[in-house]
Amino acid sequence: MNASFYLPTRVFFGERALIENKKSLALGKHAFIVTGKHSAIASGALADVTAVLGEFGISYTVFDKIQENPPLLTCFEGGKLAAKVGADFVIGIGGGSPLDASKAIAAFAANQGIEPMDIYDEAKRKNPTLPLIAIPTTAGTGSEVNYYSVLTLPDGERKKTFKASDAWPRVAFVDPRYTYSLSHGSTVSTALDAFAHALESYLSPKSTVFSEQAALFAAKELWDVLSQAPAQFTPEMREQLIAAATAAGMAISVTGTGFPHPMGYSITMLDGIPHGKACAVFAGDYIEYNEKTELGKARIAAFAAHIGTTPKLMKALLPGLANVDLSFTEEEIDRRVKLICGAGNYTNSPYVLSPDEMYEIYRAHFLKK
Amino acid sequence: MNASFYLPTRVFFGERALIENKKSLALGKHAFIVTGKHSAIASGALADVTAVLGEFGISYTVFDKIQENPPLLTCFEGGKLAAKVGADFVIGIGGGSPLDASKAIAAFAANQGIEPMDIYDEAKRKNPTLPLIAIPTTAGTGSEVNYYSVLTLPDGERKKTFKASDAWPRVAFVDPRYTYSLSHGSTVSTALDAFAHALESYLSPKSTVFSEQAALFAAKELWDVLSQAPAQFTPEMREQLIAAATAAGMAISVTGTGFPHPMGYSITMLDGIPHGKACAVFAGDYIEYNEKTELGKARIAAFAAHIGTTPKLMKALLPGLANVDLSFTEEEIDRRVKLICGAGNYTNSPYVLSPDEMYEIYRAHFLKK
Repeated sequence: MNASFYLPTRVFFGERALIENKKSLALGKHAFIVTGKHSAIASGALADVTAVLGEFGISYTVFDKIQENPPLLTCFEGGKLAAKVGADFVIGIGGGSPLDASKAIAAFAANQGIEPMDIYDEAKRKNPTLPLIAIPTTAGTGSEVNYYSVLTLPDGERKKTFKASDAWPRVAFVDPRYTYSLSHGSTVSTALDAFAHALESYLSPKSTVFSEQAALFAAKELWDVLSQAPAQFTPEMREQLIAAATAAGMAISVTGTGFPHPMGYSITMLDGIPHGKACAVFAGDYIEYNEKTELGKARIAAFAAHIGTTPKLMKALLPGLANVDLSFTEEEIDRRVKLICGAGNYTNSPYVLSPDEMYEIYRAHFLKK
Repeated sequence: MNASFYLPTRVFFGERALIENKKSLALGKHAFIVTGKHSAIASGALADVTAVLGEFGISYTVFDKIQENPPLLTCFEGGKLAAKVGADFVIGIGGGSPLDASKAIAAFAANQGIEPMDIYDEAKRKNPTLPLIAIPTTAGTGSEVNYYSVLTLPDGERKKTFKASDAWPRVAFVDPRYTYSLSHGSTVSTALDAFAHALESYLSPKSTVFSEQAALFAAKELWDVLSQAPAQFTPEMREQLIAAATAAGMAISVTGTGFPHPMGYSITMLDGIPHGKACAVFAGDYIEYNEKTELGKARIAAFAAHIGTTPKLMKALLPGLANVDLSFTEEEIDRRVKLICGAGNYTNSPYVLSPDEMYEIYRAHFLKK
């Protein structure tokens, strides 16, 4: 039994979570706000943040250059600017991309003079990252409760995860209302990402009694909403989804993710498939391969029973919701598999996928007939 | 839905948890070790701690004066000594009494010059408590993962809880082996305490999605062991019990406890009934009264179903395991109820007990025939 536990982020959850706990936003004298162009404004989160900062007389700089699949170099640039304006803490607002980027920016800001790739080298990051606050506006990433920051390398084709024990957000404000403005498609995709976290965490050999509980709770709430395939998401559903996404983020903070994550990176980077849908494409394969092992079969059965479904229905619904229609030549497949075959996630489930099997899976889904 | 979360303690769980994570013991230059006369030595925990401190060249002072139901004044004395020897961190080793005491001692040590009762006054405790490490040698209290410190007031008859947001242990080392030397009776009593935490937390109106998961996990493991009424506790059972006790401690760190806790204090303080058994005496009443409310009835049914039993069996087994045989005159009952009727716990469940009902319950259990 593994009952170890570590989750240093303080999570304030619920409507008006930020306003009602505003003192916890005041971590310094000048805030560097990391976000994208749209969701921080559309969600109302940025307005809430700047109102509270104003009330406390805390100055701030808004850096709204974060796009999907945030480039390492944008974070490097952000870190430079944060240091230049004298920021002493960072607030990330948005989906996974701004939240992940805010961790890297907090690290660069505290370590001026290092090169972009040095962020992956603990020996070169001598100073702890700036204190960090995370405010999600999607219900998917879980980035607000872990220390992962998935960045796009300068080649523009590969992702590499920056992890640092001091890159945990100190505080997360999780307000379901900040997700109300999210489109239907983005809601489904981010919910599929959260479901992938729950399932892949539950099957991980690193899972603990606590990550399991969080994963099962998350999966049940997500399945309850997703299996209805609702035409519109009610406030109640939004609340279920974001509570689940945060719980699933806690689960992967313990275990990391499984192979659907790297398998999906190529079709995200090269073909523009949103991350959550790109993971869900491979959910059926993930279940099927893991069912080949005794342990995997038992775990998947228990997981499905807990959420009130069957492995068969999961295999059908998850890729179905992703609804990805791509077709590739052998050469295109070769390029995509080569980009992802080096990830560590393949060993993070009862079944360990071989490179040959990655090709098989890609061909089965995408080979031009 | 409440999905807020805060648990700043890093928990290392498992056999050799301390030895394998020994760097996390090194929080300062001089450790003040707070413990009792026996369990720290018998369990092997003290030897592990002093070996690691020696390895790091960290000096220490052992304060082994903590007895059951630790007096506020002993903690005051310990705090003075800790300051005098120049301790800059505190290590609590033992059951609930040394762990609770270590929090108060860490607070007194950092706030020399205050009076004993000033510990309950946030305005007078100006300095944050010394950094604290908790190492449980019983599977019950959960004190290693919360910020509660239940102390006996100078009158020797009442308990009062010291709570401080900076009194959370920084680190907890939870090694099931440290409970191997615990007697059968103490194992049952402390397991009953943990079960009371799980049940009372689950019924609390302050429960969150995370405290619920922790409470249900804990209750299932505890019930699995306790309902067998084993003549001996195997290492596997010890592991189940201590994982559960830690999880139940997490649950009450969110919610606090319900009325069996204060109801039991009088028969612990005046009649020497161990704390866990004293709570379990009133478990049947707690279930019965809460079943009078619609919410309470539904919650108890869900709790019982999750752990694979029925409310009826819980009502029989828990007081049965406590096996407390006391009898009092009306005057003795009056004295005992007066000591406990001021607690806040009575409002912490769907059913709120009146003082008249406290008398009824005490009479039903204990009135001399």
